[in-house]
Amino acid sequence: MSDDDRAIRELVETWFSASRAGDIATVLELMTDDVIFMAAGQKPLGKAAFIATSKAMNNVRVEGAYHIQEVNILGDWAYLRNYISMEIIPAEGSTLRRSGYTLSILRKEDGKWRLARDANLLSVEAPPHG
Amino acid sequence: MSDDDRAIRELVETWFSASRAGDIATVLELMTDDVIFMAAGQKPLGKAAFIATSKAMNNVRVEGAYHIQEVNILGDWAYLRNYISMEIIPAEGSTLRRSGYTLSILRKEDGKWRLARDANLLSVEAPPHG
Repeated sequence: MSDDDRAIRELVETWFSASRAGDIATVLELMTDDVIFMAAGQKPLGKAAFIATSKAMNNVRVEGAYHIQEVNILGDWAYLRNYISMEIIPAEGSTLRRSGYTLSILRKEDGKWRLARDANLLSVEAPPHG
Repeated sequence: MSDDDRAIRELVETWFSASRAGDIATVLELMTDDVIFMAAGQKPLGKAAFIATSKAMNNVRVEGAYHIQEVNILGDWAYLRNYISMEIIPAEGSTLRRSGYTLSILRKEDGKWRLARDANLLSVEAPPHG
């Protein structure tokens, strides 16, 4: 495993542990300023929308697990395929479970890998992971 | 616009025109042998599954339109964000309309760009395109 490969896997682990801890500042450091998040049924969202959503989910606990399917380094770029299971646990009401695959593009800036593009295919109906 | 940029846009146009014409052999030439197609609620599919699905849709007409959002060339790799509207028109029964965004990874093999990874976020409910 190369240093870049290891750094990208660490980025994913940090993203999940910081999200679990509600540490949004750390998560924001893991994405480029021009990041674009894509999910079904909505327009692509940038970093400002990510911040707004995170603030709105202030009272919500997020638990996540992942199983990395593929990391491919292309110089200062890379792509990552992941399988994610999430539990979104509100202060009141029932837990929402979502799972599925992601395809992400990462970019190395000043020696640090960051998420640049993300296609999120998670759905409420969980497919088995491959 | 670079030659690579132009070649990738031609690939997209060829994909759509060949799909419309039911020319699956041409579409298969536009993807790598190790291509992976990802969509919500299903496991990632490879080229063999694409062929099987295409054969099963033998009597179905597909009309599609697209609006390319971004092409970024990374040497012999590239990524593409696209907005697609599709009409799936069966010989009998009602037309299915789907639209949404895609994030794709392309690879240049022997001077020819091919689709290598594809995340398909199309849904029945159409978001406005950006």
